[in-house]
Amino acid sequence: MIKVGIIGSTGYAGAEIVRLITQHKEAEVVWYGSRSYIDKKYYEVFQNMFQIVDAKCMDDNMEELANQVDVIFTATPQGLCASLVNEEVLNKVKIIDLSADFRIKDVEVYEKWYGIEHKSPQFIDEAVYGLCEINRDKVKSARLIANPGCFPTCSILSIYPMVREGIIDNSTIIIDAKSGTSGAGRGAKVNNLFCEVNENIKAYGVTNHRHTPEIEEQLTYAAGENIFLNFTPHLVPMNRGILVTAYAKLKSRVSYDEVKAIYDKYYNNEKFIRVLDKDVPPETRWVEGSNYVDVNFKIDERTGRIIMMGAIDNLIKGAAGQAVQNMNIMFGLEETMGLEQVPMFP
Amino acid sequence: MIKVGIIGSTGYAGAEIVRLITQHKEAEVVWYGSRSYIDKKYYEVFQNMFQIVDAKCMDDNMEELANQVDVIFTATPQGLCASLVNEEVLNKVKIIDLSADFRIKDVEVYEKWYGIEHKSPQFIDEAVYGLCEINRDKVKSARLIANPGCFPTCSILSIYPMVREGIIDNSTIIIDAKSGTSGAGRGAKVNNLFCEVNENIKAYGVTNHRHTPEIEEQLTYAAGENIFLNFTPHLVPMNRGILVTAYAKLKSRVSYDEVKAIYDKYYNNEKFIRVLDKDVPPETRWVEGSNYVDVNFKIDERTGRIIMMGAIDNLIKGAAGQAVQNMNIMFGLEETMGLEQVPMFP
Amino acid sequence: MIKVGIIGSTGYAGAEIVRLITQHKEAEVVWYGSRSYIDKKYYEVFQNMFQIVDAKCMDDNMEELANQVDVIFTATPQGLCASLVNEEVLNKVKIIDLSADFRIKDVEVYEKWYGIEHKSPQFIDEAVYGLCEINRDKVKSARLIANPGCFPTCSILSIYPMVREGIIDNSTIIIDAKSGTSGAGRGAKVNNLFCEVNENIKAYGVTNHRHTPEIEEQLTYAAGENIFLNFTPHLVPMNRGILVTAYAKLKSRVSYDEVKAIYDKYYNNEKFIRVLDKDVPPETRWVEGSNYVDVNFKIDERTGRIIMMGAIDNLIKGAAGQAVQNMNIMFGLEETMGLEQVPMFP
Amino acid sequence: MIKVGIIGSTGYAGAEIVRLITQHKEAEVVWYGSRSYIDKKYYEVFQNMFQIVDAKCMDDNMEELANQVDVIFTATPQGLCASLVNEEVLNKVKIIDLSADFRIKDVEVYEKWYGIEHKSPQFIDEAVYGLCEINRDKVKSARLIANPGCFPTCSILSIYPMVREGIIDNSTIIIDAKSGTSGAGRGAKVNNLFCEVNENIKAYGVTNHRHTPEIEEQLTYAAGENIFLNFTPHLVPMNRGILVTAYAKLKSRVSYDEVKAIYDKYYNNEKFIRVLDKDVPPETRWVEGSNYVDVNFKIDERTGRIIMMGAIDNLIKGAAGQAVQNMNIMFGLEETMGLEQVPMFP
Repeated sequence: MIKVGIIGSTGYAGAEIVRLITQHKEAEVVWYGSRSYIDKKYYEVFQNMFQIVDAKCMDDNMEELANQVDVIFTATPQGLCASLVNEEVLNKVKIIDLSADFRIKDVEVYEKWYGIEHKSPQFIDEAVYGLCEINRDKVKSARLIANPGCFPTCSILSIYPMVREGIIDNSTIIIDAKSGTSGAGRGAKVNNLFCEVNENIKAYGVTNHRHTPEIEEQLTYAAGENIFLNFTPHLVPMNRGILVTAYAKLKSRVSYDEVKAIYDKYYNNEKFIRVLDKDVPPETRWVEGSNYVDVNFKIDERTGRIIMMGAIDNLIKGAAGQAVQNMNIMFGLEETMGLEQVPMFP
Repeated sequence: MIKVGIIGSTGYAGAEIVRLITQHKEAEVVWYGSRSYIDKKYYEVFQNMFQIVDAKCMDDNMEELANQVDVIFTATPQGLCASLVNEEVLNKVKIIDLSADFRIKDVEVYEKWYGIEHKSPQFIDEAVYGLCEINRDKVKSARLIANPGCFPTCSILSIYPMVREGIIDNSTIIIDAKSGTSGAGRGAKVNNLFCEVNENIKAYGVTNHRHTPEIEEQLTYAAGENIFLNFTPHLVPMNRGILVTAYAKLKSRVSYDEVKAIYDKYYNNEKFIRVLDKDVPPETRWVEGSNYVDVNFKIDERTGRIIMMGAIDNLIKGAAGQAVQNMNIMFGLEETMGLEQVPMFP
Repeated sequence: MIKVGIIGSTGYAGAEIVRLITQHKEAEVVWYGSRSYIDKKYYEVFQNMFQIVDAKCMDDNMEELANQVDVIFTATPQGLCASLVNEEVLNKVKIIDLSADFRIKDVEVYEKWYGIEHKSPQFIDEAVYGLCEINRDKVKSARLIANPGCFPTCSILSIYPMVREGIIDNSTIIIDAKSGTSGAGRGAKVNNLFCEVNENIKAYGVTNHRHTPEIEEQLTYAAGENIFLNFTPHLVPMNRGILVTAYAKLKSRVSYDEVKAIYDKYYNNEKFIRVLDKDVPPETRWVEGSNYVDVNFKIDERTGRIIMMGAIDNLIKGAAGQAVQNMNIMFGLEETMGLEQVPMFP
Repeated sequence: MIKVGIIGSTGYAGAEIVRLITQHKEAEVVWYGSRSYIDKKYYEVFQNMFQIVDAKCMDDNMEELANQVDVIFTATPQGLCASLVNEEVLNKVKIIDLSADFRIKDVEVYEKWYGIEHKSPQFIDEAVYGLCEINRDKVKSARLIANPGCFPTCSILSIYPMVREGIIDNSTIIIDAKSGTSGAGRGAKVNNLFCEVNENIKAYGVTNHRHTPEIEEQLTYAAGENIFLNFTPHLVPMNRGILVTAYAKLKSRVSYDEVKAIYDKYYNNEKFIRVLDKDVPPETRWVEGSNYVDVNFKIDERTGRIIMMGAIDNLIKGAAGQAVQNMNIMFGLEETMGLEQVPMFP
C-alpha cells in the first residue's frame, strides 16, 4: 500500500486527489495537509467525505511528511513546493507537484511570468514534466514530477501530433480555451461568487496568462523549433471542464484521412486519449468525472487552416487524475489504476 | 457474471444503469434496449461511452431478452413494463422495474393517479417495493422488484424512523421537495429547455403529483395507520439531486438526543444512509455521484414541529443505484458492489 | 428632481437601487456611498454602469448626506442605520432603511434574533413597515421606512388575504422558501462561490432564520392574534428570484372560487400583485427584472390544506424596487414611476 | 403611434421584440403572429406578459398584416420572409427581417450556406443590412431591412475599425465566439435541454456555420478586399450573451494609444458602443438586458497580433434591440427610444 501525503488537501485539486486515492486499491492518504484548517476534521471541510475520511487536517511539514509517506502531492499556490523541497526530502520520498514551480526549465521565464523568485532552481533540471502520454519513460524514474497545468494538458495534447509531425505552420498557432470555475480555486474572491460567474462569460489573462510559456515550451520540444503563440482562457459558468479550440495554418494541403492517421499514430494505444469520430467535436460533458482527453480536428479548405479541439475534466486529467496517473507510473502500478471512472453524464 | 438487459437504456436513468454496471465487477450489460435508437451505436447517443461500449441499441423484446439475460431493468414510461411482463418471463429472469407499474398495491389508486389501465395486476401482489434499507429481506427472494421513485426514496427515508416509532402526528406531515432537472427525463419538451429551467424555480404537480400515493402507502405501512400528506415537488436549475424538507408536529416534547438515537437505531448500520452531525443540513452537492442518502432533522421548540431533511442523487439512489443495489441483494452479492463511488464535488 | 443618497451602493441591493433610479424620471442619485470603495469610480465596481454613472464612491457620512439629499437609502448590514440615524437627520431627510433595524417593533425580539444591541430604539415606533400594498397610507407620511426583507415580502403577500379573512388555521402555517444567490450578498465567502452553489440545493437557517419574527409580526397584525410559524429558506443556484410555497390547514371547506374572490378583493387593484389564473403556479422566471409579485393558491381537499404560492425578484420587489415604490409614495409621485419594467425572459 | 406586427412572436427573439415595444412610447404591437399558438392568449405562452398583453396569437398573414400595421418584424426561420414578401406588401409597410434571407447579397452564397432556394431574390439588392452604426444612412430610407445575425453583429463591430483602417492582415482573422443558449431558439430539441447544456461547453458548426459568409461579406465591404476567415461558435450554459474573441496579425507595430484612437474615431459618438478602458475585457454580464456592445482590444507584442473582443446581449443588440433601433431610424424617431435600459446585473 502506497502511503500518500497531500499538502494543500482542502483546495479543489487537493480534494480531488483525496477522492481518487480513496478509490485506489494500492494507495491510501495518511496525511491531509491544510494550513487553513489544521486540526479540523477533513469531512467538516468537505461533507461528501463524511463517514469516509475520519482524519483531521495537518500542517505543511514536508520534513515530517517525508518520513511518513511514500509520495507527496503538493496542491498549493506557486512557490510553496519550491520553498520546501530539498535533497534530503527527495532522497526519502517522491514528489508530485501540482503547482507550476518545476514546469518551466528556464528559471528566468518562470520568474518573469510568475513574478516570484524561484527558491530551489537546482531541482528544475531534474524535474520531469509529467504529461504522461508524452513523457511516460522519464516519469518512471523521476523523483520529482512537475504535474502539468490544466490548460497546458488540454492544449498540448490537442495539438501535439500536428506539431510533432510538422503539419502546421508553428508561427500561426492560436489557442482559445474555456474553463469551468473550479479552475479558479476555492479562495473566497468576489470574482468567483456565484452571481458574478453565472450568466456570464469573459476572457481573462489576455496575452499574459501564465500557462502560455508552459504550452510554448512543451510544443517547442515537440517541434524542435521555438514556438510563440496566443493563448486566451475564458471563464465559463460551469463547475468542471476545459475545452480547447486551437487554430493553425496548414503547411500544405492534407486530407482528413492523413491527419486522422497521424492522430491515431500517437494516440491509438493511449487509454486516456480518445480521438473522436469524424465531425464529432469534443464536449466537456462527455469527459466529466473521468481522466479522458477527447480530441478531434477539422480542416477548413477555404482558409487553409486546421481547427484542433480537445476536452478534459480540469480537476482530473487537468490536475488530480494526471497526478495519480504519474504516481502509478512512478510506482510501477497499472497506469489506469484508480482512474477507470466512466464519465458521468448528466 | 450476471448478464444484464436494459429496456430504455437511452433515457437518463437507463444510461445511469449502463454507467454503473460498466463499473460493476460481477455484472455486464448485454442488451441495450432503446426503441428510439434501434441499430444506432450506443456511444453515438451518449458520447461519454465512446470506446467503452461498442454495442448497438436493440428493441424492447422482453421475450427474447428473457432468454439471454439474468436480470432485466425496465427504465421506461409508466405502463410499458406491466404490458410486457408475464409468468413465462418471470420464470426465466428477474425484473427490476424503474417505472411505477408495480409500486402501488391498490390497482385503483394506481389507475386513478396515473390515468392508465394496469395491464398485469396479477403481479402487483408479488412485486416487492425495492426500498432496500426497509425491505431488504423481501428483496432477496423477489422475482419482480418495483424500484422506488426518486422523490419517494428520499422522502420516505427522511421520515421513516419518526413514523415507525410514532414520534410525530401523522396527520400533519408536509413534504416540500426539490429536484434537479434530470428527473424530468430526456424527452424533447419546451419546458425542459435550458433557457426555461435556468434562472427559475417553480412548483409543479401541486396536490396531485403521482409520487404522493407511493409515499403515503409506504409510510402507512410504517405507521400502521392510514397516512395522507401534502407533497410538493419543485424543479431546480441543476442536473442532479433531490432535497426533501419535511415538516410534522411532534406528538410530545422530545430532545435532540432522543430523536438522534432513533435515527441511529434504524440507520447506523446502513452503509448508504448517513445521519449527519447536529445542525449540518443535507445538501445535494455532498451526495452527487454516489448512492448515499444524507438525512438530518431539527426540532423547533417554538412551534412543536420537527423538520426532517434528506438529500440524494436522484439518478443513483433515486433510480439506477438503488436498482443495482436491489440486483446485488437479489443475486446474493455484496450489497455495495459497484456502488462504492465517493460523492464527486464540485 | 428628488436627490437620492445611497449608503451601501456597492452591494447587490444598493446597485439595484442605482440601476432603478438611473431610469427614474423624477429622481437622481447624487451620493454613491460605499465604505469599501471610497474614491473609486462607481463603474469600476459595476462595469454595467460604464458611461452611465461617472461618479466616485463616497463614505457613509449620514450627517453630511442629510444636507445634500432628499432621501437616503441604507442598503447596509444590520445595525448600521440604527447607529447613524438621529432626530436632526430625520428632520432634514427621509430615510428608507433596507436593513432589518426598524422592521421589528419589539426591540427584545430584534436583539434576540439578530444578536446585536439596537442603537436607536426610540425610532422604532415611528418607523413604518414599508410593505406598500398593506401599509400604503402610513408610508405617505413617514419619515423613516423599514423596507421589508425579501423573504417576508414574498411570504406575507402570498398568505395575507387568507390570514386577514380568517380562512386558515394560523397555528398550522409552514413557509418553505427558495431564493436565488444574490440574496446572500456580494461579500467574498467560500459558501457563495460559484462551485459551492452551482449544482446544489440546501436549506439554511432552519428554525432560526431572522426573517421568521418579521413574518410572524406582520401576519399577527393581519390576523389580530399571535402567529408562530415555521419558515425554512433554501439556496437555489440562480441569480435572482424568491419562490414561496406555504401550507396551512383550512378552517372549513371552501371552494376555489371563494378563495379566488378573496385574493382578488385584496389584490385586484394592485398594479404589482398578479393573482394568476387557476392552476398556473408562480415561477420566478416570469417576474425577474420586474417589481411584480405573482401569487396563486391550490386547495387540497384530500388533506384539507391550502397551498399558497408567491414569486418575486428578490432584488426588486424584495429590496430595491419596493424601496423605490416607497419613495414614490412618500414623495407623492405615481407609485409605479421607474418601476414599469416588463419582466425579462429568458 | 407606430403600429407593429410581428411574425414569429413566440420565439425568444420575437418575444423580446414584444417586450421592448411594450416599453416603447411611440410604438405598439397590434399583431402577435405565431403559427404554433394561433388563438392562444399570448400571455399563456409567456407568463411574464400576464396582465400586460391581453391579445391572442394570430397567423402569418403578411398581406392582411400589411394593411393593418406600419412595420412588420419577421422573427422566423430562414426562408419564410423571402417567401411572403412582394412589391405590394413593400409598398404598404416597412419590413424588418430578423432571419438571414436578405443579409447576403450574392444569392448563390446564400443558397449554398443555407441549403434552400431563395424565393424572392429580386429584393436582395434593395434590402439594407441593418447594422445601424455602420449603415445608418441607408437604413433611414429603406423599405426592407435585413437585421444582422447575433454573431455577425458582435463580430463585425469588434473588428470593424481595424479592418476599415487597414491595421490588420485580413487574411489572418480568426473569430472564436461564445453564445448563450437563447440563441438556439425555443424549439424542443434534445440538444438544448437543460441537462445537455448545463455543465458543458462545446463548439458547433466548426468551419461551416452560416454566419461565416455574413461576417465575411460585411468585413469585405469595410476592407475593400475579399476577406475569408475562420469563425467558430460555442454554446455556453447561460441564457443570454455573446462574447467574441477575435485574432489577427497586425500589419505593422502600433501602440495601444494609436489603436484606441481608431476605435474612438468610429465609436466615440455611438451611444450603444462602449470602448472599454485599457485592460478591461468585455464580459456578457455587463451588457445583459441592454442594447450595448462593449468592445476592447489587446496588443500582443510577442506574437505581433491583436486580440479584439466584444460582448452583446444576443437577444437585444443581437436581435430584437437592433431591430427596434432600425425601426427608430426608419421612422425618424430618436434612435435610442425604447432602448435606454441599463444593463441588469446580476
